[in-house]
Parts: sequence; C-alpha cells; structure tokens
Amino acid sequence: MKTIGASLVKLAPGEVVVEFSYDRSLTQQNGYIHAGVLTTIVDSACGFAAYTLMPADSEVLTIEYKINFMSPAKGETFKGIGKVVKSGRTITVCSGDVVAVEGGKERVVATMQATMICLIHPG
Amino acid sequence: MKTIGASLVKLAPGEVVVEFSYDRSLTQQNGYIHAGVLTTIVDSACGFAAYTLMPADSEVLTIEYKINFMSPAKGETFKGIGKVVKSGRTITVCSGDVVAVEGGKERVVATMQATMICLIHPG
Amino acid sequence: MKTIGASLVKLAPGEVVVEFSYDRSLTQQNGYIHAGVLTTIVDSACGFAAYTLMPADSEVLTIEYKINFMSPAKGETFKGIGKVVKSGRTITVCSGDVVAVEGGKERVVATMQATMICLIHPG
Amino acid sequence: MKTIGASLVKLAPGEVVVEFSYDRSLTQQNGYIHAGVLTTIVDSACGFAAYTLMPADSEVLTIEYKINFMSPAKGETFKGIGKVVKSGRTITVCSGDVVAVEGGKERVVATMQATMICLIHPG
Repeated sequence: MKTIGASLVKLAPGEVVVEFSYDRSLTQQNGYIHAGVLTTIVDSACGFAAYTLMPADSEVLTIEYKINFMSPAKGETFKGIGKVVKSGRTITVCSGDVVAVEGGKERVVATMQATMICLIHPG
Repeated sequence: MKTIGASLVKLAPGEVVVEFSYDRSLTQQNGYIHAGVLTTIVDSACGFAAYTLMPADSEVLTIEYKINFMSPAKGETFKGIGKVVKSGRTITVCSGDVVAVEGGKERVVATMQATMICLIHPG
Repeated sequence: MKTIGASLVKLAPGEVVVEFSYDRSLTQQNGYIHAGVLTTIVDSACGFAAYTLMPADSEVLTIEYKINFMSPAKGETFKGIGKVVKSGRTITVCSGDVVAVEGGKERVVATMQATMICLIHPG
Repeated sequence: MKTIGASLVKLAPGEVVVEFSYDRSLTQQNGYIHAGVLTTIVDSACGFAAYTLMPADSEVLTIEYKINFMSPAKGETFKGIGKVVKSGRTITVCSGDVVAVEGGKERVVATMQATMICLIHPG
C-alpha cells in the first residue's frame, strides 16, 4: 500500500475502497499500470473488507484469489474495491474490482474473487 | 440442463437465469444438492449470458471458471444467475451465483467467475 | 461418483485416481463428456486425496476450485487424478487433472487447482 | 521484473524460470516477501513460458490467473517457475510455482494456474 502510494477512501463493514494515483513507477513499458499492482491493490481491499467483519484479536490472511484482467489499466486514478460476499467464522469470500478513472469516467479493468481465512490470536 | 430438469426463467442481453427444483437424484448423501450440479447450472447461465452478446453465427465455449461454495445447497428451488462483466470480441468475463430458495428466502450458496471464448463459424 | 459410474483405481497418501467409462448419458449434444461431469470427477479425486492426509475423525469440504477446459473430452475411459500440493492443519491445496484415454493414448483435457478445508468432528 | 531485480535463469520451450533475491523493499511488515511480488514473478514466468511456443510476430497477454498462497515467503532466493500445460493457437494454459530457497532447501510457497492469450500483430 505504501509503495503504491494508496490510501483508504472508504471503510464500511464488509466494504473497503483504496485509491492510488497514476505514477510512472507503477507502469509497464506501454504506460499501463502493471498487473501486479492492480492485483495487490484489490487483494488489499478484499483483505480489509474481510477484516472489518472479523473479531478484534484476529488476523486475516489471503488463502487464494483469481483475477481477470479485462482492459488496459489506463487512467489518472485507480480504485481497488473489496466487498464481502460471505463472511464465515473461519472462511470469508470476497469479490473485488479495480476501477480506472479517466477524464471523469469509470471503467472496471480487473475483477477478483478471493478466499480469506481468519486466524485467531491466543491471549 | 435437461438431466437437471432446469428451465430458462430470464433471458436478457448479458444476463440469464436458469432454475431447477429440488430432486433427490441431484443430492449427496446428506441431502444437499451436489456441487457438480451447482457448478453445471451456473456455468450454463454464464455461458448463455455471454452468448446473448455474441454474433449470430458464433459458438460460446467455457475456457475456465472458479467457484466458491459458501453454504450447503439446501432448498426447494435453485437459481443459476449468470451476468456478463466484460464482453469482448474474443473473450467474455462473467460472474455467476447459485441462489437457494427455501421458505421464500433466498441465499447465495455458490459464486463463480468465468471466462468464455467466442468461436466464429465460417459461413 | 455412483451416478457417473466411477470407481477408485488408486488410493495413496496424497494421491487418488478415479476412473469412469464413456457413457452416452454423460455427454453433451456433441458426444463429448459434459464439463460438469469432468469437474465432479476431478473435484472428488482432489477431495479424496486431501482426505488421505487428514485425521480419522475429520471431514473434507471443497472451499473452491478453478478449472481450465483444454480439449474436448473424447475417449473410451476417463481418469480424475487428484494430488495434494500442500497439506495443512486446516487448509489443503490440491491440483487435479482429467485425462481422456482413447485408443491407448492419454490426453489431459482439464486441469484444476482446488482448496479443501478439514473439519474436525467433536466427540 | 526490473523493479523486483529478477533475472531469467531458464528459458526452454514451454518452461521458464525467473529468480530474485531477498530484498527488504519487497517485504511486508513481517519480513516475508509480499504476495503481490510473488504473483508478479510467477505470472511473468508463465507469460514467458507461453510466449516461447507462440509465433514470432505475436504478443502474449494474461487473461486471468488463480493463485494459492501456501506458506510464508521466507528465504534468501526465490524462483518463479512457469510451465505450459496446454498450448493452443489462441489460448495457452500454464501452471506456475513460487519456490523459496532457504539454507539450501526449496519449498513451494505459492502455486498458480493461468490462462494466456496470443495476439497476432498484423504486418
């Protein structure tokens, strides 16, 4: 999050939005944001979203995710949106999107389905 | 679809709903609908949804999908809902849900993210 | 497994193979085995494989899987092969293949990556 | 690749290995390599592996991948291994692993299944 320069713009129970601005250091040779950056941002948003519904003394870990890249990540600002689809005691399922904002228009450029696990810390 | 006894209950551009009723032959030993049946029904819904946005002389094939099973598939009726997230010339990305209806209440029991390919048949 | 007419042909710690023969009732209109059948067979093989490494009083459940369909499922016999990639106390990751056997030749027609959970029964 | 400091250590038809060394800038607060870095490295390895079997005037793009994180990414060196499972004219399916090397011992810390598409450039 820090490396990408992202900030939390929405934090509600079961839904989190993180945002970052275009920066040359985050791009591939063609000027689009790198897939690894998109993945990281939406994984973080999903993890936070899952965590909002977990107990205070717990930790969230990503078990796995699947992500489709749908359009080139071109824009001025990018949002990682994470939402809880099903919150369980151990397993939480999230869906996430990466939205590119360009000239005031929003476009979903990647979409994720993720499985998170809740680890309870003793003591 | 026929084996499962499913029928098409909604067919709109980019969105399809198929429905089937509980039948003992579709269940596992515990009385819940088998995961393979859930997967088939929502894969079909996603494939149809993708196809609604493809040219007339084309064929749709499932490249891959990922599905999370979230709750036991208990109910009287089940819906497979498929929606197009991104429709491209070659690749279409869909999201799907299986909804169990029990006593008038709906519950999402499985959720899918699928990639479809459009094959054009020569004339 | 019973509906498909499949039988267990290998059961080793962390690896399971199930097999079934071509039957018209398992095919789509084009004569190939239905994707839902392929998915069921390899999911079962992965679940069994995971279970071979779990404690006696436990139960295995599929959290999620992702499957790629690579070739038409044409053949006389089909194998679902499930292997444990990582066995943990709670989470087990498996990889699976569906192999079609036709005229003595084997071809991988689908490949899966699956996440299983171990549920411990009290008592 | 450059940001991560990775280099190509194996390039064979259908198989590619990239490697990078532990660097504090690639870690999370707990000292393990960040999931986004692991994902990037193995996605790159899979993309290159797919590309080795594509025609000269083509481009490879990642349609989607699914990755399971199995162990903390702790080590001195890390390898991203990408292998082609099925190479088609349009679609290529790959499997990938991230291997952590620590004190001479290798451990698979993440495993991926990816779908790549081949884009042919005109003329």
